[in-house]
Amino acid sequence: MKEQKSKCPGKQSLYFGNGVYVRGLGSVAGKLEGEGPLGKYFDIVQEDAMFGGATWEEAESNLQRMAVDRAIADAGLEKTDIRFIAGGDLLGQLIATTFGIEKMDIPLLGLYGACSTMGESLLAASVFVDGGFGGNMIAMTSSHFAGAEKQFRFPLAYGNQRPMAATWTVTGSGAVVLSSRQTNYPIRVTSATMGRVVDYGVKDSMNMGACMAPAACDTIYRYMEDFKASPEEFDRIITGDLGVVGREILVAMLREKGYDIEKNYMDCGIEIFDPKQGTDSGGSGCGCSAITLTGYILRQIAQGTWKKVLFVPTGALLSTVSFNEGNSVPGIAHAIAFEYCGAGQ
Amino acid sequence: MKEQKSKCPGKQSLYFGNGVYVRGLGSVAGKLEGEGPLGKYFDIVQEDAMFGGATWEEAESNLQRMAVDRAIADAGLEKTDIRFIAGGDLLGQLIATTFGIEKMDIPLLGLYGACSTMGESLLAASVFVDGGFGGNMIAMTSSHFAGAEKQFRFPLAYGNQRPMAATWTVTGSGAVVLSSRQTNYPIRVTSATMGRVVDYGVKDSMNMGACMAPAACDTIYRYMEDFKASPEEFDRIITGDLGVVGREILVAMLREKGYDIEKNYMDCGIEIFDPKQGTDSGGSGCGCSAITLTGYILRQIAQGTWKKVLFVPTGALLSTVSFNEGNSVPGIAHAIAFEYCGAGQ
Repeated sequence: MKEQKSKCPGKQSLYFGNGVYVRGLGSVAGKLEGEGPLGKYFDIVQEDAMFGGATWEEAESNLQRMAVDRAIADAGLEKTDIRFIAGGDLLGQLIATTFGIEKMDIPLLGLYGACSTMGESLLAASVFVDGGFGGNMIAMTSSHFAGAEKQFRFPLAYGNQRPMAATWTVTGSGAVVLSSRQTNYPIRVTSATMGRVVDYGVKDSMNMGACMAPAACDTIYRYMEDFKASPEEFDRIITGDLGVVGREILVAMLREKGYDIEKNYMDCGIEIFDPKQGTDSGGSGCGCSAITLTGYILRQIAQGTWKKVLFVPTGALLSTVSFNEGNSVPGIAHAIAFEYCGAGQ
Repeated sequence: MKEQKSKCPGKQSLYFGNGVYVRGLGSVAGKLEGEGPLGKYFDIVQEDAMFGGATWEEAESNLQRMAVDRAIADAGLEKTDIRFIAGGDLLGQLIATTFGIEKMDIPLLGLYGACSTMGESLLAASVFVDGGFGGNMIAMTSSHFAGAEKQFRFPLAYGNQRPMAATWTVTGSGAVVLSSRQTNYPIRVTSATMGRVVDYGVKDSMNMGACMAPAACDTIYRYMEDFKASPEEFDRIITGDLGVVGREILVAMLREKGYDIEKNYMDCGIEIFDPKQGTDSGGSGCGCSAITLTGYILRQIAQGTWKKVLFVPTGALLSTVSFNEGNSVPGIAHAIAFEYCGAGQ
């Protein structure tokens, strides 16, 4: 299917006219995520928080490899059929990804977009597939609660108190095989908007929702403007991990800019845990939107329950160094539009 | 110019048949780099190691912004003409890049490939430009000696001794504007090979050359096989920062695989410093290959001195966490082929 629409509409968007399709899905979650409202949707729920590894970082690498293996099998493919992997994680220098995929022998485009990485990897992989640079490509990411706490906040053993605005880093990994031909799933990646770094000067690293909401607003607004679209066209507009605090900010900000998303708005961070699970403001981490997408959202589209979804994972761009040096926490968000495309085109 | 060659030759390579051209260059270097053999080629040599910033991280952000500004001006463009930036740096969670480009209002594809990032960003940006997703796009990266030492080894004030195999992280940033049309420079990006993570089990983080040489070998071998090319076709095959130790390993490994690159081989890390400067095994860091490319290599091609160059920046994939947990230091390398293309096509 070739179309003559512009491939770069508006200011910062992309249209995939050559056809980019979802071919395989993998979602692997930790125990707490498995006990949450979306638990039954995940391909694999692992009771062992170490995922057979000796360290938290190795645990995340193993988790990631399980998700990638699952997506490849789901696509009916072998490792050798996958041309490239686009992916990354939250850890410094992407060590979960490096050690996670090194045994797979698949070339790696290493990405960092904090918790927006599922969006960033889908966007990049779609550009490769649409451009004819490989029939099958994987977009993936992961996060692990213990590894993230150790890196960004405090080691678990420290037992520190968590403020109510804090989110809970999801232990999970999601992987998607994207393909130039429609096969297993009636799902097409139609378009995307690449996000800018948006900095409102928020300095509270325990309130990621407030840091990221302006970036989500910027990207959703830009998508709507670039494609002359309206929120009502989408069955769902789904952010990554704004949580209950960021949600209110985003809805209010977009309303001020003339777009009302409240009716069809959803946030993966809010869906993934039940407040009774003690996870405060909701789930976060690259894995949060990744497993919600691969386990739940794309299956709703595959069944035709939802016909059109705008998926907007959000990332908080900080390190302990930048934070301790008194810097703000800027955000970034990338938007990816998925469409149900029936039994073949 | 459209060609009918395969866009994805062999196992892991890409051919940019729609035309991807170099339109603007920026290279900014620190004082020591400016005093080295390539000093006269850099656009800007800054005496102040802080680049006007208050911290090493801010210094690197400022450095990066200077290089991007310079590349845009060199291309005869404004910020608003640049659709996307693909780039990253060595620091955890890419904070040099986040704070470096946040004021530019250009959407960011954040990449991490350790010191291979100049190759990774050029590869990704070329795929976007070739695919028609934006007329002008920037590929860039940076590193700063003091920020890198602080993160990966010891803070400077600690005054530790350096082994002879250690390399010296270059303070520098290089940026390239890639464009779908040939304008300012007679340089075309023709093809690329995306690298795999290659792990020979080397655990010496002070001997990066040995860690990265197998990855450089793997990628160069793969480029030659995928394109049925031979090293003699290239005026130069140029690795990023193998240094004097890694150089010997790479040449020997490739010879065993049937490719002799010794005669036209060059390493940015060896070229950038004079041994008298006390930099041990040579330069390293994302900035090393980035400023050698943008300051020196591409100008040799622009003048027609070199007609065909294979640029292969190499990255050592480690963090202090992975290293302290006893992991090896895997490597990755991405290859980008540049060709002189005369006065217009």
